[in-house]
Amino acid sequence: MINEAQIHDILTKLFDHIEFSSQPSGLYDPLRYMMELGGKRIRPRLCLTAYALYKEKFGEDILQPAAALEVFHNFTLIHDDIMDQSPIRRGQATVWNKWGEDTAILSGDVMCIDSFRRISKAPAKVLPQVIELFSDTAAKVCEGQQMDMDFEACEEVPMSDYMKMIGLKTGVLIAASAKMGALIGGAPKDECEKLYDYGYSLGLAFQVADDYLDAYGDAATFGKPIGGDIINNKKSWLTTRALEKADNILHQQIIDVADMPVETSAQREAKIARMKELYDKLHIEEDAKYEIIRLTDEAMSYAATMSNGIRYELLRRFAERLVGRVK
Amino acid sequence: MINEAQIHDILTKLFDHIEFSSQPSGLYDPLRYMMELGGKRIRPRLCLTAYALYKEKFGEDILQPAAALEVFHNFTLIHDDIMDQSPIRRGQATVWNKWGEDTAILSGDVMCIDSFRRISKAPAKVLPQVIELFSDTAAKVCEGQQMDMDFEACEEVPMSDYMKMIGLKTGVLIAASAKMGALIGGAPKDECEKLYDYGYSLGLAFQVADDYLDAYGDAATFGKPIGGDIINNKKSWLTTRALEKADNILHQQIIDVADMPVETSAQREAKIARMKELYDKLHIEEDAKYEIIRLTDEAMSYAATMSNGIRYELLRRFAERLVGRVK
Repeated sequence: MINEAQIHDILTKLFDHIEFSSQPSGLYDPLRYMMELGGKRIRPRLCLTAYALYKEKFGEDILQPAAALEVFHNFTLIHDDIMDQSPIRRGQATVWNKWGEDTAILSGDVMCIDSFRRISKAPAKVLPQVIELFSDTAAKVCEGQQMDMDFEACEEVPMSDYMKMIGLKTGVLIAASAKMGALIGGAPKDECEKLYDYGYSLGLAFQVADDYLDAYGDAATFGKPIGGDIINNKKSWLTTRALEKADNILHQQIIDVADMPVETSAQREAKIARMKELYDKLHIEEDAKYEIIRLTDEAMSYAATMSNGIRYELLRRFAERLVGRVK
Repeated sequence: MINEAQIHDILTKLFDHIEFSSQPSGLYDPLRYMMELGGKRIRPRLCLTAYALYKEKFGEDILQPAAALEVFHNFTLIHDDIMDQSPIRRGQATVWNKWGEDTAILSGDVMCIDSFRRISKAPAKVLPQVIELFSDTAAKVCEGQQMDMDFEACEEVPMSDYMKMIGLKTGVLIAASAKMGALIGGAPKDECEKLYDYGYSLGLAFQVADDYLDAYGDAATFGKPIGGDIINNKKSWLTTRALEKADNILHQQIIDVADMPVETSAQREAKIARMKELYDKLHIEEDAKYEIIRLTDEAMSYAATMSNGIRYELLRRFAERLVGRVK
């Protein structure tokens, strides 16, 4: 039976020694740089965890498909950072900021392609299903990014649209990570679907938690300055919920925050404080905590219908590690 | 036996009714726009031609993989047009020019992913080989684009590097188109490799012909204004050959052309005329024609070693259609 420590060891080995071509270096250096910035490796970890539910030990068959999930995720980050003009990620310069946009576009492209190359190492028996799952998922992630960009032009978006967007942008890839591990591990069809649903709800919980931490987290553990979403007038679960709940007067006050200046540090602090004051009036912090717990419980309810005890425990601990930060 | 008219019909049907998702329209409209700009459909045509060498009639198994080659090619054009800041393609506004760079990045991404989704429809029996071929090829195309961008900072590149670059940027995808058709058609391994080599040499011939036509073609049939490479100081087969052949004085004169102004129409005409005057002194036009014929003959020499008459004829006519414009 595979335990968490073994999953951790495999992950470390996989990403300490992940191989890419070396030439031309102008193309592959940014790619290696991005992969070495680290990150939580959530998607390959979940893929390996789902695989571990069905296998006695790790085989070569799962390693490259698991790595593909992380490579693909990093590709989307490189391109998203161009579109969002984000200068910093994980405390370091983003690829476009360091090498220019052209290089960031092309290095992202080759990473996307590399992820499919790794996916193709899945066992021939499940390859058609795995690649269909991965390519459908990958397209949905782009659709989610497009919805997110479309939202920028809107003053307000309905909560159902917001949840759909984060489902596409974040939920489906985490869901597919779980399902892919199960498929390659040889799980029965219905359990593959349950693991997909588990991953999807967990992905939503993770994204709402990310939005929550952006306003209420601790800068040191969050890895980004607190209040970035508020400063950048970004649609988040918090604003969406606040606008949904507010009466006419509060509604207008929330909308007006977008126009507050952010040139100086004092202005930025004032803007964050003002928005959080409005959130407090509407009890948005509590709502967000409740929503994260609700979505995590929903994920665990899918896991609970699966057959044996050890499985549930591995999945529970994965969920706790992923969104436990908030409680 | 499948004939050219049937290949043509299948191509027309395939691209008249090619399906993409519809939502969000901000993502998929640019993609459909790009596909509807047309083009010669060289890659799927070659894929279908290679398949036709081994099959009595077309099956569903080849259609989506053949379409994938064109979708992938169009993805690279969308991103290349951003990097090159090209405003016009096939007489119409490029995607970034019409919708902005962010949309062009993301629509390109989803096209790249869509090409893998179509590739995954190849028969399960050859899917591992097909997807490995396609992903290796796709990465090489990016490597070629990076080399091309790296060349911009060089005053001169050796002919061997230039040929390597066009081999990556253009040769490998045409080669892979032929090999993929053969693989799905059930060709023996050695013939798959011969068709790859045929496609590669033909791809080089096609690119040298494109460089030739940029200086010596007819604007109406070429589809772009003549002299674009000269005006933009683009490394082409012609400049590479000219610099390789020139003595010190002529060498400096060619380098100096890059500094000629291009603000007015008269200046652009003068710059083109000056470069062609230097080409004439070195007989570059004749060299290019000779090189195109040499590469096409090389392609046909691979085809000639294959077994039966009708096969050779289909491949000869494909080559003639592709690079026959120059003779």
